[in-house]
Amino acid sequence: MHAYRSHTCAELTKENVGDTVRLAGWVHRVRDHGGVLFIDLRDHYGMTQVLCDPDSAVFSEVEKVRSEWCIRIDGEVKARDPELVNPRIVTGEIEVYIRDMEVLGAAEELPLQVFGDQEYPEETRLRYRYLDLRREVMQRNMALRSDVVASIRRRMWDIGFREYQTPIITASSPEGARDFLVPSRLHPGRFYALPQAPQQFKQLLMVSGFDKYFQIAPCFRDEDPRSDRSPTDFYQLDMEMSFVEQQDIFDTVKPVIQGVFEEFGGGRKVDASWPQISYADAALWYGTDKPDLRNPIKMQDVSEHFRDSGFAIFAKLLEQEGTQIRAIPAQGGGSRKFCDRMNAFAQKEGLPGMGYIFWRDGSDGMEAAGPLAKNIGPERTEAIRQQLGLGTGDAAFFLGGKPSSFERVAGRARDVIGEELGLTETDRFALAWVVDFPMYEKDEETGEIDFSHNPFSMPQGGLDALSGDPMDVLGFQYDLSCNGYEILSGAIRNHRPEIMFKAFELAGYGEEEVRKRFGGMVNAFRFGAPPHGGCAAGIDRIVMLLADEDNIRQVMLFPMNQRAEDLMMQAPTEPSPEQLMELGLRVLPREE
Amino acid sequence: MHAYRSHTCAELTKENVGDTVRLAGWVHRVRDHGGVLFIDLRDHYGMTQVLCDPDSAVFSEVEKVRSEWCIRIDGEVKARDPELVNPRIVTGEIEVYIRDMEVLGAAEELPLQVFGDQEYPEETRLRYRYLDLRREVMQRNMALRSDVVASIRRRMWDIGFREYQTPIITASSPEGARDFLVPSRLHPGRFYALPQAPQQFKQLLMVSGFDKYFQIAPCFRDEDPRSDRSPTDFYQLDMEMSFVEQQDIFDTVKPVIQGVFEEFGGGRKVDASWPQISYADAALWYGTDKPDLRNPIKMQDVSEHFRDSGFAIFAKLLEQEGTQIRAIPAQGGGSRKFCDRMNAFAQKEGLPGMGYIFWRDGSDGMEAAGPLAKNIGPERTEAIRQQLGLGTGDAAFFLGGKPSSFERVAGRARDVIGEELGLTETDRFALAWVVDFPMYEKDEETGEIDFSHNPFSMPQGGLDALSGDPMDVLGFQYDLSCNGYEILSGAIRNHRPEIMFKAFELAGYGEEEVRKRFGGMVNAFRFGAPPHGGCAAGIDRIVMLLADEDNIRQVMLFPMNQRAEDLMMQAPTEPSPEQLMELGLRVLPREE
Repeated sequence: MHAYRSHTCAELTKENVGDTVRLAGWVHRVRDHGGVLFIDLRDHYGMTQVLCDPDSAVFSEVEKVRSEWCIRIDGEVKARDPELVNPRIVTGEIEVYIRDMEVLGAAEELPLQVFGDQEYPEETRLRYRYLDLRREVMQRNMALRSDVVASIRRRMWDIGFREYQTPIITASSPEGARDFLVPSRLHPGRFYALPQAPQQFKQLLMVSGFDKYFQIAPCFRDEDPRSDRSPTDFYQLDMEMSFVEQQDIFDTVKPVIQGVFEEFGGGRKVDASWPQISYADAALWYGTDKPDLRNPIKMQDVSEHFRDSGFAIFAKLLEQEGTQIRAIPAQGGGSRKFCDRMNAFAQKEGLPGMGYIFWRDGSDGMEAAGPLAKNIGPERTEAIRQQLGLGTGDAAFFLGGKPSSFERVAGRARDVIGEELGLTETDRFALAWVVDFPMYEKDEETGEIDFSHNPFSMPQGGLDALSGDPMDVLGFQYDLSCNGYEILSGAIRNHRPEIMFKAFELAGYGEEEVRKRFGGMVNAFRFGAPPHGGCAAGIDRIVMLLADEDNIRQVMLFPMNQRAEDLMMQAPTEPSPEQLMELGLRVLPREE
Repeated sequence: MHAYRSHTCAELTKENVGDTVRLAGWVHRVRDHGGVLFIDLRDHYGMTQVLCDPDSAVFSEVEKVRSEWCIRIDGEVKARDPELVNPRIVTGEIEVYIRDMEVLGAAEELPLQVFGDQEYPEETRLRYRYLDLRREVMQRNMALRSDVVASIRRRMWDIGFREYQTPIITASSPEGARDFLVPSRLHPGRFYALPQAPQQFKQLLMVSGFDKYFQIAPCFRDEDPRSDRSPTDFYQLDMEMSFVEQQDIFDTVKPVIQGVFEEFGGGRKVDASWPQISYADAALWYGTDKPDLRNPIKMQDVSEHFRDSGFAIFAKLLEQEGTQIRAIPAQGGGSRKFCDRMNAFAQKEGLPGMGYIFWRDGSDGMEAAGPLAKNIGPERTEAIRQQLGLGTGDAAFFLGGKPSSFERVAGRARDVIGEELGLTETDRFALAWVVDFPMYEKDEETGEIDFSHNPFSMPQGGLDALSGDPMDVLGFQYDLSCNGYEILSGAIRNHRPEIMFKAFELAGYGEEEVRKRFGGMVNAFRFGAPPHGGCAAGIDRIVMLLADEDNIRQVMLFPMNQRAEDLMMQAPTEPSPEQLMELGLRVLPREE
């Protein structure tokens, strides 16, 4: 017989009754039922009930066993009494009578219980992560993550992509976030950097003629921690293709992502049709470039109804350039109580409030209520109602000013309204492409123009488009949103040096600066670069959505805490004087 | 029609004759045959011959095209004349008459030709890696690497392993080589480290109950460069299992590795039976712990034949403790010329020389020749011949002293003899397990005892074995050698804290030191650790063997040069003062 086990803890059924078996695993819990010891023995695969009666030669040994000890037992499989059968687990028909036992690894008193649902501070969970990971939900999340990544790989291979590994110790590539630096020992005083993404390398692969690349790529950004991102490294499905236009990327990626959601969505509905929404429309309709389409609410521009109206605040606002009044229709929100609550929400979010109108049964049929309706009069109120397609029992909320001043709050109000009124579907993954991102944005204070997203994207209209107003230039750049999260981002790349230099010039970067920052890639484009494009999808976020978790640390094995420390492994630590010497570095004394 | 291509450059056959097609790719070469321009158009998949006659509307455009320009053409597929059919390529039956052309990416004068076999200095190849990678052998090697890794993943999944990603920015884990350090911005003066291997994490995963883990894991070692290793990062198939003994690991890994060699070996024979050779036997028989079993030569201990013999040098040597005389039998090496050459080889390697005997046809039948035979006389000579199983036309070489003084040279002599005499098979992958490594080694000068390999291995015999002579303790530790390379290394781990502390104590590490260095893992073992073991296989080396390359940079996309610089991306570079300030570091002035 094998030294440790003849079966896993999820294998034995009625078929095995009478067999002598060997099992190994952890003591999930021990119960003493009238002198008979019942142990739930757990391994990665499942649980088996093993028991020891006082007649057993090893009873006194088994008596010593405590939770989370790792043991090996030999025993005889017996059928459970029919009334004791547990149909929820594979091994629920049997139990194993212990004949022999070996302690493989004893456990000291536990700082964290594996059995049960007790909650622990995150610091405790991370310090004793190896215990935390034994808990059912963590075992399930990690297996899910692993299976999702495997499925993505299979799907990418199946459509003709190869995975190529790009360097991890490489050059600084200023792409927005901070690089992690790695001091060089062979070249003291000089530093490598860890890649924020394999962006330049995957584009170089296209220049090298590899045609279709993907990688489950570790990415490194020295960012200030947040609950939904890792403060150090995270993983992306990174992909790139040559000789493609934007629609080709969509057609390639959609079956992969959709397939993964369908495979691991646990029966939740996955939208088969993914609309393409322009960045401008997304902002107008949803107040965000990561729209949650499970929520049917679509905001609308209702400025015309308020221009020169009796509602002086909005009428005045509209005299300023660039202002707008937007309505959030709220089907079923037609009560003063709800409307006041939403108004209070807007105030809490820093706005002066949200005007509203709601429609109710009045003495003469439907009537519009709320101060706003009074101010603008019945005709305008009715025109708004018709534009929004609302009726009795519904409400509409109004926000005015420059869209940039209220759009984010409007988007959040839409979320809250959708949820509170039960309009937002649950158990559904709603996906949408967001396209036509502006290439540039203007700093409102300084008036300076900079890239709004990826500087490597191809501007729509090419070189010609770059001779007009930069703020009108759209990029071949896109995101994929799912349930309000951005899960993928990509672009058709700018592979033409002359267009690239012009695009950078508009953002204030001279040719020399570009060569210095992105020399590797820009040089390569001089030698026959193909048109290409691609995208990167966030593995952690996709797994979070599938696992229905809202903390990235729930889907990572050994995450840092929010101060970017590893409490279990003790990182970061002080280097030795010899290490610093070899690297040619001195640590500056800290200011107290 | 698609904007860039209706077909790849490896798709068109006779079936397409008459079709109007669109192709995109690189100009492999252009030839002008009597005014007609012939272009070999190349993409990742293959080559298609396209041509342009002077009647074509775009002739003057096509005339401008040069090697490695990236172009798109539209054209009509025509059958080649029968005598011009090229049966070696898929598209050899057809050619495409260009009707329209678009330059997608022009190329400046090339620093490195893609067409042809011209050799370039490695610095040029690395600086223009994107051109170098377009060459056929590099495309093939990279695709091979990608396919090998994919195949390994598939095979591991198929046998129930999941891939889990362990942290890359983590704690220093002193495992022999130097760590790469990463300064922390949030904790100035403190450093993370990049993992030399996920050793501790995979063991923690076993403690967490994951049962079967693997990872195609990036590993980081700040080592001085060598041609067969990357100076920064490399990849391993890293795996670990719980509740296993050494033989279980072998049984699990063998089908994976064997399958990969069979799948990608290009018809070369892959040994189906892998012997288990003890470390001691490997040293005796092959002079190395990485034996090349394609070579049938097995060295033997022939000390007894020289003890008190007339060959004073060896007889004297044998009076010292720990000395030995070893013979390298050389079938077919029975000529003075060959023997003298091998003797010279040994001298070049730093030994005084290699004594030899060879057997030839003499007047009275077979006779033994060489000075050594004379010194020890015919009886001893004959006894040696019989022990080694040699005959007329064969030779034997002899080395004496403490094995550690000559073993490496003996091993190399065995290689040379095997190759020169044609004894070493080519076109074969010969694999062998090397087992029973000693746990400890003694520094010959200081007499200090240290771990000879992995300190985390379980000593054979457990705690009891550690109370005897440390030099007698063997570990459950193993390597897999293939054709003279170590391609895999692993161990059954020491999961019992009390045995671990004792094992470290023998090597001079106190309990506190162990807790400080390996605290994460040692702590975890206090809470129910399962017996476990695993191994790591070198991806780069396996691909090198399969691709028949002897330089690791031939199987890596974007390697550093041997001074650990990336000439293409310009790494490492000097950090900005702001970066240093944020990290709380100062670069020490360099000594001139």
